[in-house]
Amino acid sequence: MTPLENDTFLRALARQPTDYTPIWLMRQAGRYLPEYNATRKKAGSFLALAKNPAYATEVTLQPLSRFKLDAAILFSDILTVPDAMGLGLYFAEGEGPRFERPVRDESAVRALVAPDPDGELRYVTDAVREIRKALAGRVPLIGFSGSPYTLACYMVEGGGSDDFRTVKSMLYSRPDLMHRILEINAQAVTTYLNAQIRAGAQAVMIFDTWGGNLTTAGYEEFALAYSRRVIAGLVKENEGRKVPCILFTKGGGQWLEVMAATGCDALGIDWSTDLGAARARVGAQVALQGNLDPAVLFAPPDKIRAEARRVLDAFGPGSGHVFNLGHGISQFSPPESVAALTDEVHTYSMQLRTTRPA
Amino acid sequence: MTPLENDTFLRALARQPTDYTPIWLMRQAGRYLPEYNATRKKAGSFLALAKNPAYATEVTLQPLSRFKLDAAILFSDILTVPDAMGLGLYFAEGEGPRFERPVRDESAVRALVAPDPDGELRYVTDAVREIRKALAGRVPLIGFSGSPYTLACYMVEGGGSDDFRTVKSMLYSRPDLMHRILEINAQAVTTYLNAQIRAGAQAVMIFDTWGGNLTTAGYEEFALAYSRRVIAGLVKENEGRKVPCILFTKGGGQWLEVMAATGCDALGIDWSTDLGAARARVGAQVALQGNLDPAVLFAPPDKIRAEARRVLDAFGPGSGHVFNLGHGISQFSPPESVAALTDEVHTYSMQLRTTRPA
Repeated sequence: MTPLENDTFLRALARQPTDYTPIWLMRQAGRYLPEYNATRKKAGSFLALAKNPAYATEVTLQPLSRFKLDAAILFSDILTVPDAMGLGLYFAEGEGPRFERPVRDESAVRALVAPDPDGELRYVTDAVREIRKALAGRVPLIGFSGSPYTLACYMVEGGGSDDFRTVKSMLYSRPDLMHRILEINAQAVTTYLNAQIRAGAQAVMIFDTWGGNLTTAGYEEFALAYSRRVIAGLVKENEGRKVPCILFTKGGGQWLEVMAATGCDALGIDWSTDLGAARARVGAQVALQGNLDPAVLFAPPDKIRAEARRVLDAFGPGSGHVFNLGHGISQFSPPESVAALTDEVHTYSMQLRTTRPA
Repeated sequence: MTPLENDTFLRALARQPTDYTPIWLMRQAGRYLPEYNATRKKAGSFLALAKNPAYATEVTLQPLSRFKLDAAILFSDILTVPDAMGLGLYFAEGEGPRFERPVRDESAVRALVAPDPDGELRYVTDAVREIRKALAGRVPLIGFSGSPYTLACYMVEGGGSDDFRTVKSMLYSRPDLMHRILEINAQAVTTYLNAQIRAGAQAVMIFDTWGGNLTTAGYEEFALAYSRRVIAGLVKENEGRKVPCILFTKGGGQWLEVMAATGCDALGIDWSTDLGAARARVGAQVALQGNLDPAVLFAPPDKIRAEARRVLDAFGPGSGHVFNLGHGISQFSPPESVAALTDEVHTYSMQLRTTRPA
């Protein structure tokens, strides 16, 4: 493989010194970019786009042409695994993801089988290989999946929810069924992420989007225990280099200590947690990724720059920070906002390194 | 006024010894009760019900006839204040609250005036007086309002939101306008809660439903600062008894220390925070209210009882706990679940007091 031209992202995840704070954005290839919308139109739908390696490669690279980003992330969906289990992922217009055949009873749970990453999910590893080729070593490529619990939320609920009534009902009434789903999901996600790594993903991220809907005890039992299992089963090195794993739980600010103890290399931090406080709590163990409020991108450039500096100052001097938003970028964000953000993060973090000891 | 037969709730808020842990439920008068739905049908709509003191009294008392609850809460809405400001509160079928005339620009902000609680909001204090009469001292009556920030979210957004894009845009782009709205809201909420207290509310609760959508710095600047102002301006005593104030921020688990320092008497704790950990952090300053996951009420009675014991055990021995859900009760909760819950909370907490020192 071509050597990496820019490994700032991987060095920051390893908490090694870097010249500046690297930045990438969750959902950086997405609807806020007109060129993405054009490709999506060509593809016909979001899923047709995600399942076509050539299109997925095209949109993965689009934000890198516009902005100075330090990593690319595979264009895909967090729900590819349950889709490959045969649950029938679809997107209703203007709504989030839904499943045609949600997993609601014992027989549906018993029927679940972890998909073969070389079978139904082959389009993902094909995309990873094609993206790596197209990147030609410019920046590292991140692979990802939803966490076992977050997948279970969608699988049981059949879609997003305000109150997660269906999945919570199963969790409290039939914890045995919930644990069975989570076991299969953990196995499936592990195999899936390892297939992405072997195909060329140079870091992986586990998105636990809904772990924050649990109690502290529930989070440990139903979400964290299974993310920990995935992390323990991951390929740790590939192409002669460590493959770091980032664990992100939206709304998980209260649980950083137990998240950091899973064996992951970095924690994704949403915008509700002060990054300095997070670092004081777990920064000796893991790198931190985050955590600008995505809504800041609706403000004028001067304000975006000021808020970016606030996040960098909160983390403070030293290594171990990957700049990101606290959640995915909104489709309504002006692309110019991202340009101002990436510029400020690079410029200001470089200044910080020359004006005070790292 | 009639003396209180059951002041367990008020004693627990004052962190005085009680024979058992008192319980009430957020939204306890609501759609999960068939008798509530019958009254609502008579009234014609939610708002017609809330604005009619006789109906409001009727539904406020309904859950007390069914369950052994230790407090009543005024039947009303958290958005009565902006409605009285002339923004036109309405409820679209199957959706949350909306405003006909959201506050989106400078001229709309300049036009805002805090409503007179004896004018537009007279129906609320009339309801408080009528409910107090009907309660005849059985249990204390709680008054409430949305927090200045939560009101602002609805006022600017025009309704609920997934991303609060409009209000966050104003907050980041025109903080001066946001602060102006919050100043007026703080003044209005203070006057409004004091009017409820003078009419007979024996405790008040500030619902900061959306404070959790902010960053830590933003929470202090835009949400907490104005709740603190409200708390500082509240009538502290009435009818010869202290009138305690409960501050609840959904998603505020990371900020309990600063919330406890506002001068409130108790914190509402959502289900994501372990109650024992919360107590260790702030229990020397304030009482705690909460925090069962509302979804537990979808489970069978045995599981509900086990989860109720878990919450009581997490708080541990000693006074200063008011049992509640971590959020409002779902309309889909079976009433029998509430019966099992109130019974277990009373029985088990009484046992705890006789088997170990308080």
